[in-house]
Amino acid sequence: MKTIVVKEHILKANARAAAENRAGFGRARLTVVNLIGSPGSGKTALLERLATHSEVRFGVLEGDPETSLDAARIERAGVPVVQIVTKGTCHLDASMVHRAVQELPLEGLRFLFIENVGNLVCPASFDLGETARVVVLSTPEGEDKPLKYPGVFTSARAVVLNKIDLIPHLSFDLDRAVETLATVVPRTPVFPLSCVTGAGFDGFVEWLVELADRIMGPVAGPPPTGADV
Amino acid sequence: MKTIVVKEHILKANARAAAENRAGFGRARLTVVNLIGSPGSGKTALLERLATHSEVRFGVLEGDPETSLDAARIERAGVPVVQIVTKGTCHLDASMVHRAVQELPLEGLRFLFIENVGNLVCPASFDLGETARVVVLSTPEGEDKPLKYPGVFTSARAVVLNKIDLIPHLSFDLDRAVETLATVVPRTPVFPLSCVTGAGFDGFVEWLVELADRIMGPVAGPPPTGADV
Repeated sequence: MKTIVVKEHILKANARAAAENRAGFGRARLTVVNLIGSPGSGKTALLERLATHSEVRFGVLEGDPETSLDAARIERAGVPVVQIVTKGTCHLDASMVHRAVQELPLEGLRFLFIENVGNLVCPASFDLGETARVVVLSTPEGEDKPLKYPGVFTSARAVVLNKIDLIPHLSFDLDRAVETLATVVPRTPVFPLSCVTGAGFDGFVEWLVELADRIMGPVAGPPPTGADV
Repeated sequence: MKTIVVKEHILKANARAAAENRAGFGRARLTVVNLIGSPGSGKTALLERLATHSEVRFGVLEGDPETSLDAARIERAGVPVVQIVTKGTCHLDASMVHRAVQELPLEGLRFLFIENVGNLVCPASFDLGETARVVVLSTPEGEDKPLKYPGVFTSARAVVLNKIDLIPHLSFDLDRAVETLATVVPRTPVFPLSCVTGAGFDGFVEWLVELADRIMGPVAGPPPTGADV
């Protein structure tokens, strides 16, 4: 019982910090995406490919148990980025995001992507104050993951099905994967794409822009200034 | 602080249960392998391929947040198996293993494989009473995972580098992956292999048999009976 009480305490404190983040993101007119997926599902590659789409001006917070390897990749793509090293912790929480975003120059950005720790379980429990969660699932992981790890999928606003370029070399059935997702998250859009070839990527970018238009209104006038997240 | 104390309490209780498991596994002369890896790294495929090697008579405990899909696969391979559904928990613990192993007929088995929840972070903190941990890393995950998730790799007795058959289709450098592993775990054997083609698999099987010979002694006389784990 003690454990459960402490877990509730942690999640309540996180919910307060997430609400503060959310209010700050709103004032900054930022659409914030919490990217969740297994290690190696292609979350960083997704952001690298996104950097070639000028209609999505974005910054990145990178979460990893150790190293700033991913932040270095994002920086090479010309995107403002801050690395959060969790020192072995299995997820990001709202207070980590709050501290890191202070270091990020937000002026002129429309989106903030938060790349969570590679993990299909724990990140699902922690609201970061994001606008939307996107789960990145990759074809080599197999079609069955939404059934085995439903929690993270049911919390997602969209699912990216990455690495479709590898399908000819795998025993992976794209139709079956989409059907499986439909049984777990019937109303969630699924974007089969490849961050290597770019196939299917435009549809995901359109969805992102529509999301920002719906949440923050279409871009008009000068970019927001004085972001005070 | 409260959180840390409770975490210590949980880990101490787990360590007691793990010690009991370990004693029971020793009485049953079982070599127990805790398989850890990302979702979709190929842990179940490894066990399916292992079932074709008659020198490794084994049973399986399957851990997943939901479903008994993996247990069904192992059963189809003709191997005794019990599914542990963690109901969303991100790792197996020693008490889950204790309860599940009661349901498994251990007579005549030399090995028990415990397939942990797909997760490169949390399972590293929980001793199950195993003889050895083996981490399964797959080529589509990239070469950098040992640097980002060092905890699980430093706790492993061996690393399986799975899906080498996909290397021609990936920007994955096997030499660099092995070098990266050598910087994180310089004394840990690494087995590049493919569970699809079988390439490299014999070396891993030899290592398993040697491990069992070293820990439990070579097979001699009748198989152990009256396993009382």
